[in-house]
Amino acid sequence: MERLTTFEELRAYAGAAPRPLGLVPTMGAVHAGHMSLVERSSRECAATVATLFVNPAQFDDKGDFARYPRDAEGDLAALAAAGADAVFTPPEREVYPAGFATWVRMGGPALPLEGAARPGHFDGVATIVAKLLIGALPDAAYFGQKDGQQVAVVRRLVADLGLSVRVVAAPTVREADGLALSSRNGLLNAEQRRGAAALHRALQAGAAALGEGAGAAEAACRAVLAKEPQVSAVDYVALVDQATMAPWSGQGEAMLAAAVRVGSVRLIDNLLMSAD
Amino acid sequence: MERLTTFEELRAYAGAAPRPLGLVPTMGAVHAGHMSLVERSSRECAATVATLFVNPAQFDDKGDFARYPRDAEGDLAALAAAGADAVFTPPEREVYPAGFATWVRMGGPALPLEGAARPGHFDGVATIVAKLLIGALPDAAYFGQKDGQQVAVVRRLVADLGLSVRVVAAPTVREADGLALSSRNGLLNAEQRRGAAALHRALQAGAAALGEGAGAAEAACRAVLAKEPQVSAVDYVALVDQATMAPWSGQGEAMLAAAVRVGSVRLIDNLLMSAD
Repeated sequence: MERLTTFEELRAYAGAAPRPLGLVPTMGAVHAGHMSLVERSSRECAATVATLFVNPAQFDDKGDFARYPRDAEGDLAALAAAGADAVFTPPEREVYPAGFATWVRMGGPALPLEGAARPGHFDGVATIVAKLLIGALPDAAYFGQKDGQQVAVVRRLVADLGLSVRVVAAPTVREADGLALSSRNGLLNAEQRRGAAALHRALQAGAAALGEGAGAAEAACRAVLAKEPQVSAVDYVALVDQATMAPWSGQGEAMLAAAVRVGSVRLIDNLLMSAD
Repeated sequence: MERLTTFEELRAYAGAAPRPLGLVPTMGAVHAGHMSLVERSSRECAATVATLFVNPAQFDDKGDFARYPRDAEGDLAALAAAGADAVFTPPEREVYPAGFATWVRMGGPALPLEGAARPGHFDGVATIVAKLLIGALPDAAYFGQKDGQQVAVVRRLVADLGLSVRVVAAPTVREADGLALSSRNGLLNAEQRRGAAALHRALQAGAAALGEGAGAAEAACRAVLAKEPQVSAVDYVALVDQATMAPWSGQGEAMLAAAVRVGSVRLIDNLLMSAD
């Protein structure tokens, strides 16, 4: 696996790589969810570049950034095992050099839910994703559906800037009890870990109630969360349009999304669904 | 000259064009300044695409947008005569489709001078320039030095997003009396047109006084402007660093820039200089 640390190296690698080229952006703390993205890119593309950069710009909470798990050697081994041909691990000063002054600012799908809860988060996401896509000019870029709003924001970004890349959203990888894999799960103690499974159960209950309407779906989801003592707060439960993240109108593909706190750990998850 | 109206057509044209490819963004109202950019691109590149789009996003003043001179047929003939191989003339809905939600927001060199006088102007410039550069992926892009702050903003944008394009700033083309060519000059009456030449004379007086310091240069420039009755207001006179647009420190390349009003018409101009 080739190791790239500057955008110049990324451009040179991507320019010479066999096509199609797949890009898998990560912030490290690599788990089976990330590995499924790399594996899929490896199947679908002739070359795969994974990126590993804990992007300070997308953390609204400095404590969250400081606590974010980091294990560069373990991450590199996992990305290589999953089939990455190269990994781009830029230092912070390569991404945000002195005098950096250009930010991608997203409206639309970036505004509600995570955008409301984490001011500036999606501007940070959009800026780094734009830089990675412009740097590598890949044919496909892979994101986990677990961050469903991020998928919608990246699709909007790609359409609006006219980037020639296919955005692939891969299914969320889950533990046996349904908990979505997340770099933050490791911050849970044993009790919290058991309770965290309520998030997926709640979303399933919401999906089962969708036939009775959006309000019923959200209420069913909230009812399950309310019964779980390890869930200390519910940031939001919302049934939204998959593309716009606006409240679902009853038409088109929907996403039931929720954000909760289990102890001090904030977890998000979602399920895709349609009215049929 | 080939006519392109969608980003898909632009991408296809640019992908098949001989390289190097030059891009010359314009808002139409084509004059000899624009033509000098196209001519230079034609000399330096194997193919040249001019773009013609009056970008509503960069007008902070709707009246200014409405009054902005438009002559598509004349513009196309002029761009062809100057040597453009293709012209990209997208309708507004192609550039900003329904649901468009992605804006490039610039700090740094975009903040003072024109950025302070015209809120949002450079975000509009950066967004359209990013879209054009991503769409065509040219090897070189040509801008007039008359909009000197725009040159600094575009250079910052290109560096920060990691676009692989050489930004070329071409010398300002002037009338015999020194007035910089501008699409807005046609809005001046005969008296105003004569008085407008004071702007260039003032900048020259400032440059001549630079040896006595930044304050002296700005004062000398203002003194000439104060003597011209057709100059109804001075928005700013500032000696700044060519790259950062911050007040000139006495080190590096400087730019003496001014914005004035002649009647209701706002004119800008600048001179590049160094301390040597």
